[in-house]
Amino acid sequence: MTRVDLNSDLGEGFGAYTSGDDAAILSLVTSANVACGLHAGDPEIMARTFAMAKVNGVAVGAHPGFPDLWGFGRRRMPFSPDEIERLVAYQVGAAQALAAYSGHRITYVKAHGALANLAAEDRSVADAIARAVRAVDRDLALLAIALTAQVPAGEACGLDVHQEIFADRGYTETGQLIPRGQPGALITEADAAAARILRMIEAGAILTAGGAMLPTPIHSICVHGDSAHAVATARAVRVRLEGAGVTLAPFRP
Amino acid sequence: MTRVDLNSDLGEGFGAYTSGDDAAILSLVTSANVACGLHAGDPEIMARTFAMAKVNGVAVGAHPGFPDLWGFGRRRMPFSPDEIERLVAYQVGAAQALAAYSGHRITYVKAHGALANLAAEDRSVADAIARAVRAVDRDLALLAIALTAQVPAGEACGLDVHQEIFADRGYTETGQLIPRGQPGALITEADAAAARILRMIEAGAILTAGGAMLPTPIHSICVHGDSAHAVATARAVRVRLEGAGVTLAPFRP
Amino acid sequence: MTRVDLNSDLGEGFGAYTSGDDAAILSLVTSANVACGLHAGDPEIMARTFAMAKVNGVAVGAHPGFPDLWGFGRRRMPFSPDEIERLVAYQVGAAQALAAYSGHRITYVKAHGALANLAAEDRSVADAIARAVRAVDRDLALLAIALTAQVPAGEACGLDVHQEIFADRGYTETGQLIPRGQPGALITEADAAAARILRMIEAGAILTAGGAMLPTPIHSICVHGDSAHAVATARAVRVRLEGAGVTLAPFRP
Amino acid sequence: MTRVDLNSDLGEGFGAYTSGDDAAILSLVTSANVACGLHAGDPEIMARTFAMAKVNGVAVGAHPGFPDLWGFGRRRMPFSPDEIERLVAYQVGAAQALAAYSGHRITYVKAHGALANLAAEDRSVADAIARAVRAVDRDLALLAIALTAQVPAGEACGLDVHQEIFADRGYTETGQLIPRGQPGALITEADAAAARILRMIEAGAILTAGGAMLPTPIHSICVHGDSAHAVATARAVRVRLEGAGVTLAPFRP
Repeated sequence: MTRVDLNSDLGEGFGAYTSGDDAAILSLVTSANVACGLHAGDPEIMARTFAMAKVNGVAVGAHPGFPDLWGFGRRRMPFSPDEIERLVAYQVGAAQALAAYSGHRITYVKAHGALANLAAEDRSVADAIARAVRAVDRDLALLAIALTAQVPAGEACGLDVHQEIFADRGYTETGQLIPRGQPGALITEADAAAARILRMIEAGAILTAGGAMLPTPIHSICVHGDSAHAVATARAVRVRLEGAGVTLAPFRP
Repeated sequence: MTRVDLNSDLGEGFGAYTSGDDAAILSLVTSANVACGLHAGDPEIMARTFAMAKVNGVAVGAHPGFPDLWGFGRRRMPFSPDEIERLVAYQVGAAQALAAYSGHRITYVKAHGALANLAAEDRSVADAIARAVRAVDRDLALLAIALTAQVPAGEACGLDVHQEIFADRGYTETGQLIPRGQPGALITEADAAAARILRMIEAGAILTAGGAMLPTPIHSICVHGDSAHAVATARAVRVRLEGAGVTLAPFRP
Repeated sequence: MTRVDLNSDLGEGFGAYTSGDDAAILSLVTSANVACGLHAGDPEIMARTFAMAKVNGVAVGAHPGFPDLWGFGRRRMPFSPDEIERLVAYQVGAAQALAAYSGHRITYVKAHGALANLAAEDRSVADAIARAVRAVDRDLALLAIALTAQVPAGEACGLDVHQEIFADRGYTETGQLIPRGQPGALITEADAAAARILRMIEAGAILTAGGAMLPTPIHSICVHGDSAHAVATARAVRVRLEGAGVTLAPFRP
Repeated sequence: MTRVDLNSDLGEGFGAYTSGDDAAILSLVTSANVACGLHAGDPEIMARTFAMAKVNGVAVGAHPGFPDLWGFGRRRMPFSPDEIERLVAYQVGAAQALAAYSGHRITYVKAHGALANLAAEDRSVADAIARAVRAVDRDLALLAIALTAQVPAGEACGLDVHQEIFADRGYTETGQLIPRGQPGALITEADAAAARILRMIEAGAILTAGGAMLPTPIHSICVHGDSAHAVATARAVRVRLEGAGVTLAPFRP
């Protein structure tokens, strides 16, 4: 029986600011990537998010990003791979501590925003992230964007690597995400997203904008927690996959 | 044979800013309290400080403070004990991760500045810190200011509590630090500080401004890393204690 | 003919975070208090808010707060009156510059959140704010909470002082705001708020929870921009006042 | 009689952190570029620095940088020219306000660190800075790095542009600063720096590493406030120039 994880970014508010409908998302996903206080999140939000995930039976991972609250971690900040290593280690440790505080436990790490995109393209950044994870706790898994430099980087470090595809993003012919702002970048219609995801899961491949199928292991599906359609998309994906007999479960409970 | 620890706050710069002569201090102390990025320190400085401490055979602890870089953690910020619990957990986790990254290992936690002073006076704050430490890792020790609320709070949480006295501060008749700005608050002459410390170690008691001796276990002596006389004081204390046959060693290697 | 101003806090997002429906509020109020980047707001949001206010014919004021993005300026931070003076001067200057950049012009200053509440109670803080305004530009008016220390402080500095009442808050028998969390603190029903405001405008007095009327000049009515009912309350107040022949216009165009 | 300005970056500490010997530098220079709180400085330091400059008869300018306290404004942050415009406007306004608060007055603007270097190379960034200055106060002068894009950008905006050369930096054959880390980038010997500066002032030209002379107006000489040799270099330059009959005076008193 096919089995796949459904993940989303959570805990991305800051102080009085909120981002996304975390409670609704937590009732739908199987893994939550929790912001670690540098691009979003704070100790209060982290503790609360881990506790809510625990109650919902949702697995949790650290979701480190650039130290750029102003840019929500979406800007490519000028940090060297060595500096990124320390930035990631810092955030993973903070997330481990607050998960423990909330009675939960981090089982994986997934990079956020510009840091993730950079690590998808640039092996030296991907290596830095993987090394940081290994240094802090080699039992942590890496949740990597499928078909990118993140995958071999994690494997080279001996990490347990899981690959994700995106429910709400289109793919180029080489398996890259179509950049935001270009035609086909975003898939905003929930049912279309769900149908497309089922097709990819069944094929074990990424469907490109041109209709090609690029084979890849698929361990998880990402639904963006802060987009307006996140809840609808997550619900549609869950319904469609379960209807087709696919089990939704954390890749790392 | 008497044995005592000598601790100092280290890694209290930020980016291009420095604070204190960490290299000199590291050659003198046996334990280093490392700032965790909220009142001072950043991932670069933390990693470097842990690595240097490792090379010098110096034990390391997390040194959490209020999130107040501007005030260097010396202002009493309006956080509730519950919020302090999460703030401390966050910082302890980050410090554990960067210590691991640098091949070292945190063995204790000591609160910084206004947070420490508040925890000395207010049992509910002391309890919050102790609970945070226990939640993150119950094997971590607590380095507490002798004769303050920090001690029973740590013990009530089942933590291994060690008590410190200050080499460069005067004490009131009830064993409190004389507030900065008042006569006798600071002991700036290194040899005087060293002689006084030896007297306290030998007596197993705190010497007050009025000349009274308040019995207390003394596991560690604190030399402030950022004061101008820190290196001279640390050196004088070390020389004086070793000359008297006291062994300087980490309370938690 | 009676004439009064309707003000609201605007531009209180940060980066990707939003707070309140600024576009809707701007179509209803006559003055906008614009956050200055320390408790909320950033240069992008400030410039955009000033430009939108200009288009809507809405007067603008600087809305300085404590440097506490995490706490949204609602926590009483440990700054001395002297430090508050510099904090306010900094923010007023930044707001003047970005208003000029956007083709608009700051005509007044109104303190935010915990800073405003502190200045309402503590004359030394109110004096600090007034001195800062005078030092930066003595032609700026002060928008003060009616019947508080802010009023005499502004007058003692020779500032043009205008007084505001709150549409959505209840008052104690001495004219203080009933603290949030206590019964009667918030008036959430828009029509009730509007009716009450009209009564106060007509009486030239503050209506207390006990039904007493405390006479005061009323130059402006505040509708909180970030509360859920802000738009509804602002609309109800506007309709009710205009229906009674009251002209809504900036106290300082 | 030849007349030239001597400028230095001042007020570049933050909270308890210091950077450079501002008191010594203020007794030597004729213009002080004051950090505005985003890459360094805070309202306390700004007010103090403006007041000290006033006492010393030193002219003051706003010294805006990227919002990057961690990197001291030396990293090229990913901001668009439009965003830079708002960032600069914000900082110029804050500096104007605190200068007024301290009884002094900003007469010019000079970009800091990575922002200045970017504006030297990239005309669109230089235009953004010049537009910001003009929008806030068209009477402010622009202190530009000689022979760079900053000069025509300022002139195109109708600003009064003054050009500076560096006392402690070597120049390439095209008049660019030799990048830090390359041979000849830094001139650390104070007397050599002073002799070289006199030669350039007398020639009205920049001396390149290869010995060529590139003609340029020279209105000011920059001595870096945070380098170890800043005070010695400033003193040597002052002595050497005055000995040669050159008058040191602000380009904009």
